[in-house]
Amino acid sequence: MRSVSIETGVTKHAEGSCLIRMGDTHVLCTATIEDRVPPFIKGSGLGWVTAEYGMLPRSTTSRMRREAAVGKQGGRTVEIQRLIGRSLRAGVDRVAMGERQITIDCDVIQADGGTRCASITGGWVALKLAVKKLIKAREIVTDPLISPVAAVSCGIYAGQPVLDLDYPEDSEAGVDGNFVLRGDGQMIELQMSAEGSVFSRAQMGQLLDLAEKGVAELVEAQMKAVA
Amino acid sequence: MRSVSIETGVTKHAEGSCLIRMGDTHVLCTATIEDRVPPFIKGSGLGWVTAEYGMLPRSTTSRMRREAAVGKQGGRTVEIQRLIGRSLRAGVDRVAMGERQITIDCDVIQADGGTRCASITGGWVALKLAVKKLIKAREIVTDPLISPVAAVSCGIYAGQPVLDLDYPEDSEAGVDGNFVLRGDGQMIELQMSAEGSVFSRAQMGQLLDLAEKGVAELVEAQMKAVA
Amino acid sequence: MRSVSIETGVTKHAEGSCLIRMGDTHVLCTATIEDRVPPFIKGSGLGWVTAEYGMLPRSTTSRMRREAAVGKQGGRTVEIQRLIGRSLRAGVDRVAMGERQITIDCDVIQADGGTRCASITGGWVALKLAVKKLIKAREIVTDPLISPVAAVSCGIYAGQPVLDLDYPEDSEAGVDGNFVLRGDGQMIELQMSAEGSVFSRAQMGQLLDLAEKGVAELVEAQMKAVA
Amino acid sequence: MRSVSIETGVTKHAEGSCLIRMGDTHVLCTATIEDRVPPFIKGSGLGWVTAEYGMLPRSTTSRMRREAAVGKQGGRTVEIQRLIGRSLRAGVDRVAMGERQITIDCDVIQADGGTRCASITGGWVALKLAVKKLIKAREIVTDPLISPVAAVSCGIYAGQPVLDLDYPEDSEAGVDGNFVLRGDGQMIELQMSAEGSVFSRAQMGQLLDLAEKGVAELVEAQMKAVA
Amino acid sequence: MRSVSIETGVTKHAEGSCLIRMGDTHVLCTATIEDRVPPFIKGSGLGWVTAEYGMLPRSTTSRMRREAAVGKQGGRTVEIQRLIGRSLRAGVDRVAMGERQITIDCDVIQADGGTRCASITGGWVALKLAVKKLIKAREIVTDPLISPVAAVSCGIYAGQPVLDLDYPEDSEAGVDGNFVLRGDGQMIELQMSAEGSVFSRAQMGQLLDLAEKGVAELVEAQMKAVA
Amino acid sequence: MRSVSIETGVTKHAEGSCLIRMGDTHVLCTATIEDRVPPFIKGSGLGWVTAEYGMLPRSTTSRMRREAAVGKQGGRTVEIQRLIGRSLRAGVDRVAMGERQITIDCDVIQADGGTRCASITGGWVALKLAVKKLIKAREIVTDPLISPVAAVSCGIYAGQPVLDLDYPEDSEAGVDGNFVLRGDGQMIELQMSAEGSVFSRAQMGQLLDLAEKGVAELVEAQMKAVA
Repeated sequence: MRSVSIETGVTKHAEGSCLIRMGDTHVLCTATIEDRVPPFIKGSGLGWVTAEYGMLPRSTTSRMRREAAVGKQGGRTVEIQRLIGRSLRAGVDRVAMGERQITIDCDVIQADGGTRCASITGGWVALKLAVKKLIKAREIVTDPLISPVAAVSCGIYAGQPVLDLDYPEDSEAGVDGNFVLRGDGQMIELQMSAEGSVFSRAQMGQLLDLAEKGVAELVEAQMKAVA
Repeated sequence: MRSVSIETGVTKHAEGSCLIRMGDTHVLCTATIEDRVPPFIKGSGLGWVTAEYGMLPRSTTSRMRREAAVGKQGGRTVEIQRLIGRSLRAGVDRVAMGERQITIDCDVIQADGGTRCASITGGWVALKLAVKKLIKAREIVTDPLISPVAAVSCGIYAGQPVLDLDYPEDSEAGVDGNFVLRGDGQMIELQMSAEGSVFSRAQMGQLLDLAEKGVAELVEAQMKAVA
Repeated sequence: MRSVSIETGVTKHAEGSCLIRMGDTHVLCTATIEDRVPPFIKGSGLGWVTAEYGMLPRSTTSRMRREAAVGKQGGRTVEIQRLIGRSLRAGVDRVAMGERQITIDCDVIQADGGTRCASITGGWVALKLAVKKLIKAREIVTDPLISPVAAVSCGIYAGQPVLDLDYPEDSEAGVDGNFVLRGDGQMIELQMSAEGSVFSRAQMGQLLDLAEKGVAELVEAQMKAVA
Repeated sequence: MRSVSIETGVTKHAEGSCLIRMGDTHVLCTATIEDRVPPFIKGSGLGWVTAEYGMLPRSTTSRMRREAAVGKQGGRTVEIQRLIGRSLRAGVDRVAMGERQITIDCDVIQADGGTRCASITGGWVALKLAVKKLIKAREIVTDPLISPVAAVSCGIYAGQPVLDLDYPEDSEAGVDGNFVLRGDGQMIELQMSAEGSVFSRAQMGQLLDLAEKGVAELVEAQMKAVA
Repeated sequence: MRSVSIETGVTKHAEGSCLIRMGDTHVLCTATIEDRVPPFIKGSGLGWVTAEYGMLPRSTTSRMRREAAVGKQGGRTVEIQRLIGRSLRAGVDRVAMGERQITIDCDVIQADGGTRCASITGGWVALKLAVKKLIKAREIVTDPLISPVAAVSCGIYAGQPVLDLDYPEDSEAGVDGNFVLRGDGQMIELQMSAEGSVFSRAQMGQLLDLAEKGVAELVEAQMKAVA
Repeated sequence: MRSVSIETGVTKHAEGSCLIRMGDTHVLCTATIEDRVPPFIKGSGLGWVTAEYGMLPRSTTSRMRREAAVGKQGGRTVEIQRLIGRSLRAGVDRVAMGERQITIDCDVIQADGGTRCASITGGWVALKLAVKKLIKAREIVTDPLISPVAAVSCGIYAGQPVLDLDYPEDSEAGVDGNFVLRGDGQMIELQMSAEGSVFSRAQMGQLLDLAEKGVAELVEAQMKAVA
């Protein structure tokens, strides 16, 4: 796995923020607390966590078109931000959170593979910092974050199971997986996908072994960052 | 698993078509052959399979807004049609297919859970029928369809692993998975996702066992339909 | 006129539904009852009937782009759905209907000319079935449907007046008309249009004669369907 | 019928232009000649006439939202501009016109009912002036304009057939018709539509009588304007 | 400076209106009074003046695409309408105006350079006429219009400072400025911009001298128009 | 003026990049070189410099909606990115640059007033670094950058002329100006604007004096950064 670093407090306005670096993949994650919730849970007393994701136009090898200029978010962006939101919600006790919304913005400053996983891992840190602020201000009594949530990618590259693929590996891999786990080892989301290839149950098991190791390391980095 | 029926040749214009029924979920799948390919493979000699997905506004319990009237496809729609395309491509030898594009349209006439899986299973039948037409017309020599592709959903509902969830089960399930497999048992795509819950490796194994059984049945229905 | 068939109850969710077949033109029509009305009649006690229209991408000889993917409904679509709504409203006593909205969705499964007329004829059947449900549930006392509404196309093709043009005739016709009539013979909407041609009052009379005969037959089929 | 005035040459840039006033309805019509034609007739040697329609935001009693700011043309706008284009094309010999496009822009400066009819009548004047320029410059040999095209609205208001309805009449009329005729009496387009009412063949005849008289007067005004 | 003419009362619906002609640049300006204000000042007792700007497609030498058809207002349009609104607000006592909104629509009928300046100058006239109506109806007690607001363009063309550039001058000018002043000589907005060139403080002074002279003349024309 | 720092080489993919900090305003600027130019200068041999601007959703005190999610760039964004592009082009010899395009992306990481000026100043550094790369690779012979381009905001706050306003000052300032100057003291763009206030020639002179001092300091920081 590439070296991980998580730097917190990187922007003065957000209730929680960090810059996570997984090798050359750098993602800025911020958490915004708002009193309103989406219409479908209004009045339920439950909280909501949602996420948005974006890439700076020149975060990539060649410049991508700016989605705001194009006039819509691409399919990949929508897919990723739904995954981030779903993953983080799985680590939250929404009753303890109270009827408020926390929005996690994940903006990729520099991309080198694994941006969605870095966004989940860094997004949880921003979320945790925002929650700590709420607890300190006594707006929340019980910590609604059950367990840390972290994610890592694995894939089969050149016939071998590989942990935390960088962009060159990722674009060559026949099988590509994203594993979102909690700190207590429980699984939240598992996506394995083959483009122009297939995989067996045995291979899936190998990747999962790798992912469990990787996530354990990431959770350690998260705990250090939010301490 | 709910009863499956696949009726082919349901529209006179498409090169391949079927109406797949998984219980009360009914999806119309059509295949369109075009000579052009997307710009990124132009001149490569390779073929392309892509998919689009839609739900009729009143395919659901209460009426949904028509995406064409809203002015854009929702995130769920985009996610599903990308999955269908990726899954079907994994069963195709794109060299044997030749430089042409086949578009699979999956339109949900009536929804009761599992529409994305039914779309993949029915979409493969439409694809196969279109390919047979190309072979009969001698535009293709070798069958580019390596093995059938079928999908089934599984989930943990009321603490129990359940195969092929209908809508009431699906909306209550704590863990929800979609499994795309080939007829030869190889895996193509695996998505497990927990909303407000978690799952263990053991549970994942149980669901996979169910999925393998379900897909075997689906492949049988596919083979009968395209015979 | 091509053979007509109207099959009702084709989808389990809608309050009224039918699949109308005019030769090879097949349209699925559903009716949805909602308690809300558009803002401009809120509090007036009047009801509203509106319609939306769509074509499945491969309902046509060559595949059309999906309007949801393009990001807007084309001019032809907008024109047709406004016509359907206006036509159906002309057969409704909006006071007797009460302050509620019924939305008719007309989705073309297979197209071979005359889809807008089939949508009106089938749409009325779906509307009637939904109204019957309201009456049965005693939510409405007096039947607000004054008289059936049906539509047929006529045109001048190869110099001859022709009833119910199919697609090859329609695309060659110099003059093309759509006639929406009530079961009692009164006219609701009449559109005659020449592209690259003209027509006389005498010709208009001939087409109207044909249309009256055609609509009488359609009304018979409607009455049988809703009985 | 309200008094008609057609002032030509009202803008220095357009190849043809006029300001048509039908009572308090004022529409600015311009014709633009371009060498390109739409893709579907490229290389056919045929010409094309198309139209666009808009209303200034405060052309109406209360301010309408600007369509450019809303981000799309409404259904009514689309319907009207398609009608204008289709009507004008019916008076054109597209072979004589040569492979070029003339775009008619109809912008409503002040609205008081009948804007689509005024647009067709004024639009033909702008078209004629542009064609005269082409003939004078010897770019066209034979005049492609077969006969003038003009339009008038008629309706049944307070039980009586009425010619050229103004806005208060129009918004109260139970039946509302638009008649597009050629100078030689031939019909091009006929639209009669009842909202919350119906009409008989006899009434249709009465309205048509009125329309023929009205159009004759309009054609006179057109001929004077382009002389 | 080109000759100026301001014709008032040019449309019967608007609360204030004028057609301003600066040489061959003709802009129709209307003022609409509404009781609602934007959300951010609701309940503050303050008024709001805003503006929208548009060009008719054939107001220019060659036809521009209609922004409503394109589906969005271009960057230049947005920039100009923000300038008009900001400029007019600077001449308004928003307390005296009371909690209402006046929208100024500026639609360019014919363009020959300086349309944004003509829009501000004509827009103020429409605004003044609308305010006079409010005062006459005793809905406003004190005139909220502190001083007339007018604008003129200046530039450096062929090395010389030039007042009120027409289109050929404007498109060749290396430096281009827009000056918005009040009748009392105070400045409201000053924009100087060099494309492919630069300018000195001395040149800026020369242009400002010209602008002050030009605006004095425009204010005279405004006062005559609203008298 | 607030303290300035310019850190270069902050992203590995871009041809030139820097993070500029003006007090608490932090903007990431990248330069992308492409061989294509906009259609209107194709084949002219001239180069083009353009810019895009964006703010991260939580760069501000309260979260702004993400423009990509909203589906369009706001008016302020469009205005700013046009200003950046125009300003940078004024410092470029487009013949020496050769037929290529350099796109400057300015993304605001943290905002505290003056983001457009920081974007211009930092954007020039990114541009310079990209140009140096082209010169080093001998793709360009003569340096096309005539003189550095930098910008600073000034305004009248609490009656006093103030240089480089931060957000609290900016939102209170009655008069607000942006000054874009070249290193040789020549002016490129000057925008002064009063919202609810006015200003005199004398005040304009004072602000310009401040701006000249401020820009001199910025140019020094630029030169150090690109050395």
